[in-house]
Amino acid sequence: MSEKVFYGKGVRRIKEEDPELYESIEDLDKNIWNSKVLDYRTQKLIAIAISATSPESSSFLKQVSKAKKELNITKDEMMDVLKVVLLTSGMMSFNKALQIVNKLYD
Amino acid sequence: MSEKVFYGKGVRRIKEEDPELYESIEDLDKNIWNSKVLDYRTQKLIAIAISATSPESSSFLKQVSKAKKELNITKDEMMDVLKVVLLTSGMMSFNKALQIVNKLYD
Amino acid sequence: MSEKVFYGKGVRRIKEEDPELYESIEDLDKNIWNSKVLDYRTQKLIAIAISATSPESSSFLKQVSKAKKELNITKDEMMDVLKVVLLTSGMMSFNKALQIVNKLYD
Amino acid sequence: MSEKVFYGKGVRRIKEEDPELYESIEDLDKNIWNSKVLDYRTQKLIAIAISATSPESSSFLKQVSKAKKELNITKDEMMDVLKVVLLTSGMMSFNKALQIVNKLYD
Amino acid sequence: MSEKVFYGKGVRRIKEEDPELYESIEDLDKNIWNSKVLDYRTQKLIAIAISATSPESSSFLKQVSKAKKELNITKDEMMDVLKVVLLTSGMMSFNKALQIVNKLYD
Amino acid sequence: MSEKVFYGKGVRRIKEEDPELYESIEDLDKNIWNSKVLDYRTQKLIAIAISATSPESSSFLKQVSKAKKELNITKDEMMDVLKVVLLTSGMMSFNKALQIVNKLYD
Repeated sequence: MSEKVFYGKGVRRIKEEDPELYESIEDLDKNIWNSKVLDYRTQKLIAIAISATSPESSSFLKQVSKAKKELNITKDEMMDVLKVVLLTSGMMSFNKALQIVNKLYD
Repeated sequence: MSEKVFYGKGVRRIKEEDPELYESIEDLDKNIWNSKVLDYRTQKLIAIAISATSPESSSFLKQVSKAKKELNITKDEMMDVLKVVLLTSGMMSFNKALQIVNKLYD
Repeated sequence: MSEKVFYGKGVRRIKEEDPELYESIEDLDKNIWNSKVLDYRTQKLIAIAISATSPESSSFLKQVSKAKKELNITKDEMMDVLKVVLLTSGMMSFNKALQIVNKLYD
Repeated sequence: MSEKVFYGKGVRRIKEEDPELYESIEDLDKNIWNSKVLDYRTQKLIAIAISATSPESSSFLKQVSKAKKELNITKDEMMDVLKVVLLTSGMMSFNKALQIVNKLYD
Repeated sequence: MSEKVFYGKGVRRIKEEDPELYESIEDLDKNIWNSKVLDYRTQKLIAIAISATSPESSSFLKQVSKAKKELNITKDEMMDVLKVVLLTSGMMSFNKALQIVNKLYD
Repeated sequence: MSEKVFYGKGVRRIKEEDPELYESIEDLDKNIWNSKVLDYRTQKLIAIAISATSPESSSFLKQVSKAKKELNITKDEMMDVLKVVLLTSGMMSFNKALQIVNKLYD
């Protein structure tokens, strides 16, 4: 299992510097992905969509890249997500996300 | 089919006042939900998640309300969406969305 | 001249409670609208557009209302602004702004 | 101690519906306010500032209201926070926050 | 005519991969800039202002660059736009936009 | 005194190109940091927190870097700020800020 997409190097350093905080983050993370009905893949697509409409483009890049490698999420799936981004959030968010998706799926 | 959740009264007035703009919105809308792989339900959950992390709370309310009525999306599904909101976007977005979901599913 | 659209009651109270801060806000405000090339009307439309894509819907309402009363900005002008909002920022911002504009121009 | 300003009714319901998620939220929350150097009052002012620049105005209202009651944070302290909001984030965020602060400190 | 500032390479690829979606984007785009009263130059300044206050700085860069080349928008016009950004949205958005404008107009 | 963290090269150029605007920015800036009760250090931590949750990551980098050099703000203080960011605004903002803080304090 490899749900820890938000665990960059930064969070791993917290493990040493503030182990209690680290444990509570890890615990929350586990409970987030421990879904009742939606499957893990759907939750991941949701995280990717949220990230596409947020300004942290490095977070979007990391998530799409992981989703492709570990869950074999296809470009067609990604495009179905980005279409919802286009309608709800406009061309600025769509364009930024599209460039990253095109690059990662080339 | 009733995918036009973003069509409030406002957009319907455009139909009379600027029919060409209206048609192009309708056409885009149709192509958005006309997904290649994801089903309509998943796309809707994605739209709801984006809306939960955006500031337009009236948009979130409308979407959840429609999703419940027309697609029978359950509270457990909604909570699996909100958990991703909590992890990615924090307690402020989560709390606002949670209040609306609790109210609509009471 | 009545450019002080951002001066709600709150800012006026600052005049008594912190006169130096008030003066510096007033001074900045004066220099903002004292444009070199764009006319005041165009700058106002720009402020309205920014406000439409920001989450503070009460600010958008106040600005459109003032622009209508004091500059006689028409609904057609407003709709040309909102169309740019739709393309750049998507249906969520557009819908919220549209509802307010429709109400104020009825 | 009463740091649970983000625990609206919504979060309390999670206690019954998803006790493990609830516990991990509570645990994270405890570790957040368990600061190493900054005192609790300063961390609260920081949470208030973040909330003033975010779109969730109901979150800002709740936090200021709690901070006033439980920590006796004064209007002068609040205004020193809001001044930073004005400089960094502009008149739209400042005005919204100012109205809420003025109301709560009347 | 060259209004397609939002058409990066990404959107052009959609032309091949999803021609119907592409056509509906193109059609919407045409109706956006087909304004009733505002001229194209004013609409462009509005798009630039929205983009300055949004987090997608690459979008802002592209738009200013195009506006300079194709519409001969001057630095003074740009600065009148940025002044409104400063007042409404604060020093963080203003500073980022200012750096890009200074670079492009050197 | 060195409070002018928002004064990048861009703002300094305004001094020559639009001296009146420059003066009003400088004057506002002075009144912002001229706090009534909070000390300068606390106001700076607040500015840093706001900047961590905003999309302008270059602004966050500059502010943390200045705060470290001029006010000797320690990594522990920074982490107490970032914990509040994590709770209120989620893993995306936290991760971005954490990477920058880790780099600057290495």
